[in-house]
Formats: sequence, C-alpha cells, structure tokens
Amino acid sequence: MTKKIAILATDYFEDSELKAPYERLKDAGFKVLVICPVAGREITGKRGRFTIKTDLAVESVGAVDFDALVIPGGYSPDRLRLNPGAVDFTRDFVQSGRPVAAICHAAQLLISAKVVKNRTLTCWPSVAVDVENAGGHYVDEALVVDRNLITSRKPEDLPIFIDAIISAIEGDEAELSA
Amino acid sequence: MTKKIAILATDYFEDSELKAPYERLKDAGFKVLVICPVAGREITGKRGRFTIKTDLAVESVGAVDFDALVIPGGYSPDRLRLNPGAVDFTRDFVQSGRPVAAICHAAQLLISAKVVKNRTLTCWPSVAVDVENAGGHYVDEALVVDRNLITSRKPEDLPIFIDAIISAIEGDEAELSA
Repeated sequence: MTKKIAILATDYFEDSELKAPYERLKDAGFKVLVICPVAGREITGKRGRFTIKTDLAVESVGAVDFDALVIPGGYSPDRLRLNPGAVDFTRDFVQSGRPVAAICHAAQLLISAKVVKNRTLTCWPSVAVDVENAGGHYVDEALVVDRNLITSRKPEDLPIFIDAIISAIEGDEAELSA
Repeated sequence: MTKKIAILATDYFEDSELKAPYERLKDAGFKVLVICPVAGREITGKRGRFTIKTDLAVESVGAVDFDALVIPGGYSPDRLRLNPGAVDFTRDFVQSGRPVAAICHAAQLLISAKVVKNRTLTCWPSVAVDVENAGGHYVDEALVVDRNLITSRKPEDLPIFIDAIISAIEGDEAELSA
C-alpha cells in the first residue's frame, strides 16, 4: 500500500524546505499531503517562490493517518505553534514513534509540542538556545537522527534530510543508525 | 542634554514596532538612532511598509552611549540573535540598569542575551514557551515593567509601550510602578 506523508505548514515557510521534500517524496512514490490549520487554501513561502494548495485541515487528521511527518522551516513554525491543533498533531506524531522530520525553525514547533526534552537534534542556529532551554541536546550537524526524530539545519541540508526521511519510511534502520 | 535612544533592528522588523517608537520618541524631543549590525544601509519591515536608514553599527556602540534601548519585534530579533554584537549589546544594556524596551518577538533576543531568568515579562504568544524555558515568568498583559525591563506583546500595545519608555527615560518611577 502506498505510504502517506504529511507535510505540516502554513504561510511564510522556507520555500525550498516545502518544495524539495514535496517533489522528491512524490517522485519516490509516496502520497504526500499538505496539512495546515485551514484546508483548501493556497499557502506561499516567505520568499514568494513557491505556492501550494493545502489538502487537509490539521484538526481533521491524526498521526495514525500517516506514515511520516515533515515540518518545513522558515516562519511557518512560528505561526503553527500558536495553533493548538498543529501542536497536538506534532506531539502525537512524535509520541507515536512514526518518523518526524523537522528542518530549520521547525524545532520551534517541537518545543511547543514539548517533545525535545532529552532528545538530540539540530535546527537553525537562532533556535539552538531555545532547544537547549527546553531540555534538548543541540548539535551543529547537517543531519541528526535520534530514534524517530530526523532533524536538519537549513536548505543546504535538504538532500541528506530527504534521504533520511525516505530511509526511515522504508524502515532502513541500518542506514538510519549509520 | 538631549537623551539618546537606540533602536536595535535589522530587516523583517514588524513595521509599526519600529516606525511608531521612532516617530513618537523623536517628537518627544529625544535623539533616536537606529542601530544594526551594518551602519548606513536601508532596512525594511516584513510588511514592506516602512524603510529606514541605519545610523550606527552595533559593534561600534555600547550601552553607555544611550539612555534607553528599544527592540522592535517581527522577524528582526530572530536575525539579530545570530549576531554576537547585537546579543552582547542587549545583555550589556539590561545589566547596565538603563531602560530596555522589548516588544513582540524581541523577547527572542533577550533569551539569547540570557537576561530573562527570574524576570517577569510579556511577548508575542508564540515566544512565551521559550521565555518560560529560559527561566522567565511570562504574563499575558499589554505592558509589563520589571525594573528596567519594559515589555509588550504586539502592535496594538504600542501606545502604552511607548508611554512607558518615555516615563522610564524621564525617571517617572511613580507612573512606571502604577
């Protein structure tokens, strides 16, 4: 059965951090759905370079509906962390054990979901102090995989970040722990 | 002697949170200078509604050069917290005892400067969890004055926020503690 991937975003996402996972994960044969506080509206990246229509409202879905969650960065996470549905969805997903991939400022949403304590992760450097204050262990690496939490720092890390998402969904534990 | 006020900002500030303090504090007779990592360049708000030329580079100034510091919100603080000079300037200012007025996302810069521990403050609600994790006490009020730290939440709070800045500079302790 086709694996389903949720991308959780709203306006002001870092354009490439939604576009690249969306396109590469679709090309890899997964069903990719854009989840947002509001379904059926167009959301645009902070650079105005990528616009996409959202598929489902976050309130209408649960972690059990998907095989993995991807959270792009930019200023979208700063907005999503004010939405209780987005925060609950993120927390439930991490606690479900399914892969959650967060890049750049997406760590802000992980902090609001209270799932970074005692986890090792990376993020955009401005958020590192917030991760540490939340009890997380920040490291400055292109890719960090801590159990089901897959994190990267910035658009330049996208190739290895997306490789790790695919590996995690396909259950390639050997590659994930490498 | 004319009192000098520093406004610390870079691109993507919340337009009204730079424009309103800048104009009202100038009108009140203060000398207002825009401080940025780079001097003599134009910076523009995230809404594209206000552009201003920066006066001085943050590396070239110190807290002793000013009577108060104002930090607008928006996404400017997220960028400034990556600049060691801006972080040091903010920390030195708070530790100097001179008034520091931070609105909206400006609390992020206070967190990076490690000056929120055991302080009571307010900020944009998405940042509240980061303030609490940094050891600060977040309250949801239009204006919070804790010793030399003056904080507000959002553009709607600007009138009372700017009143408090003026009171603090003029040493109107009675009004500040009201």
